[in-house]
Amino acid sequence: MKQVYNITDLREQITNWTLQEESKIVLVPTMGALHEGHLTLVRSARQLGTRVIVSIFVNPSQFNDPNDFQRYPRDEAKDLDLLRQENVDMVFTPSPEVMYPQPFMTTVSVPEIAKDMEGAFRPGHFDGVATVVTKLLLQTLPDFAIFGEKDFQQLCLIETLVRDLNIPVNILGAKIVRDEEGLALSSRNTLLSEDGIAQARHLNKVLFSIARLIQTGGVSISEAQGVGLAQLAEAGFDRVDYLELRDAETLKPVTETNIGRKMRLLTAVYVEGVRLIDNVQVNNASDWISGFGK
Amino acid sequence: MKQVYNITDLREQITNWTLQEESKIVLVPTMGALHEGHLTLVRSARQLGTRVIVSIFVNPSQFNDPNDFQRYPRDEAKDLDLLRQENVDMVFTPSPEVMYPQPFMTTVSVPEIAKDMEGAFRPGHFDGVATVVTKLLLQTLPDFAIFGEKDFQQLCLIETLVRDLNIPVNILGAKIVRDEEGLALSSRNTLLSEDGIAQARHLNKVLFSIARLIQTGGVSISEAQGVGLAQLAEAGFDRVDYLELRDAETLKPVTETNIGRKMRLLTAVYVEGVRLIDNVQVNNASDWISGFGK
Repeated sequence: MKQVYNITDLREQITNWTLQEESKIVLVPTMGALHEGHLTLVRSARQLGTRVIVSIFVNPSQFNDPNDFQRYPRDEAKDLDLLRQENVDMVFTPSPEVMYPQPFMTTVSVPEIAKDMEGAFRPGHFDGVATVVTKLLLQTLPDFAIFGEKDFQQLCLIETLVRDLNIPVNILGAKIVRDEEGLALSSRNTLLSEDGIAQARHLNKVLFSIARLIQTGGVSISEAQGVGLAQLAEAGFDRVDYLELRDAETLKPVTETNIGRKMRLLTAVYVEGVRLIDNVQVNNASDWISGFGK
Repeated sequence: MKQVYNITDLREQITNWTLQEESKIVLVPTMGALHEGHLTLVRSARQLGTRVIVSIFVNPSQFNDPNDFQRYPRDEAKDLDLLRQENVDMVFTPSPEVMYPQPFMTTVSVPEIAKDMEGAFRPGHFDGVATVVTKLLLQTLPDFAIFGEKDFQQLCLIETLVRDLNIPVNILGAKIVRDEEGLALSSRNTLLSEDGIAQARHLNKVLFSIARLIQTGGVSISEAQGVGLAQLAEAGFDRVDYLELRDAETLKPVTETNIGRKMRLLTAVYVEGVRLIDNVQVNNASDWISGFGK
């Protein structure tokens, strides 16, 4: 496994591959602190392409909270071990200076998608994400790039900017990987105590229960949302940023009149001062299958 | 000369070229209404690459004034004739629907460069430029793209976003082409009467005279600027948006303390209700050579 630190070396290796073989390059952008969720992305990448590149970059510009940036988990040695075991071809670990040579002045933004949910609670977050992902895609010019659905709003944002800016790459979303009790895997879970983990495991249960409630019908969406918020409070989440039912493609709020489309139920909560997000698919009545416990 | 109307056909032709030959692709983005200035860009492109692509797209999103957009000169038949004579390989003439399929949500911006001069008088203009140029570059992925120095602030903006976003293209600026009396060629000149052209021909003379004045020294920059504004008024320009001396690389205002660097004197004025821009290089004392009348 090759490790590169700058864009020149990254591009040189990619050019060598494409000159020597019929290659399909797949990029898996990460912020490190890799877990089984990331490794599932890497395995999908392996299926899809001939060469798999994983980038590890904890992007300062997407952290609205400097504390969150400081304590974001980092363990490069372990990450590299894991990626070696997955037969990753190249790891790209740029420094902030490589990513943002000064003066750096350009921003990519998708205000319509960035304005609410994560964007409302994390000002500037999505401008940071949109800009760094655009850069990673243009540095690498892969055939495919894979992102997890756990950051569902981020995935929509990336699909939108790639389409709008005509970036020549196929974006793939990968299903959320959950632990044996349904907790969505997250690098931030490592910041939780055992009690915190136990607490966090209630989150997906509430989401799936409200998804089922909406699916079953008989309650309005705002009633279902109210039940969800009550269940979250009861489960001990004393700080909930949002619990929203959205159209799965446009991310627009779902009302009773457009409930027929594919939907997503999204939430952000705090456990032990750590901000956790999760989301579940909400299908149309006829094809609804619980995604959990299967 | 091939004409294509959509991105699929554009990319297919480029792929065919690159598979069949050792090709260097050069893109010359234009808004049509081509004049000798554009044709000079095309000839530079011919020198530089094996395949020359000219895009013609009057980009609605960079016109802050709908009237300006409406009356912007268009003559595609004549443009195509001219490009055929220059042995251009492909012309790309997308419709607004091809360029901005709805919903379209993404913006590229460089606020530090866009905030003043053209940006101050044309709100939103540079977001429109930055976004459409990013798209054209990513649709085409050329080896080189050429832009005229007449839109000097635009050229700085494009160089910045290409560097910041890691767009894999070399940007080249080409010198302003002037008529026999020094008037910078512009598609908008066709909107002027004979009297308007006579009036407009004073603009470059004031710029070169003030450039010389700064160069000669003995006056402060703000004094030189005052003399310039007085000369513009005397020459009959009753509406002047700005007359600014800027660092040629950063576009930051030049003060007495950083006058030693390469500079640019930029202006925007109105003639017969038509907005005209022009700029001249201002060199360091020792290597100053008047760019006009040589």
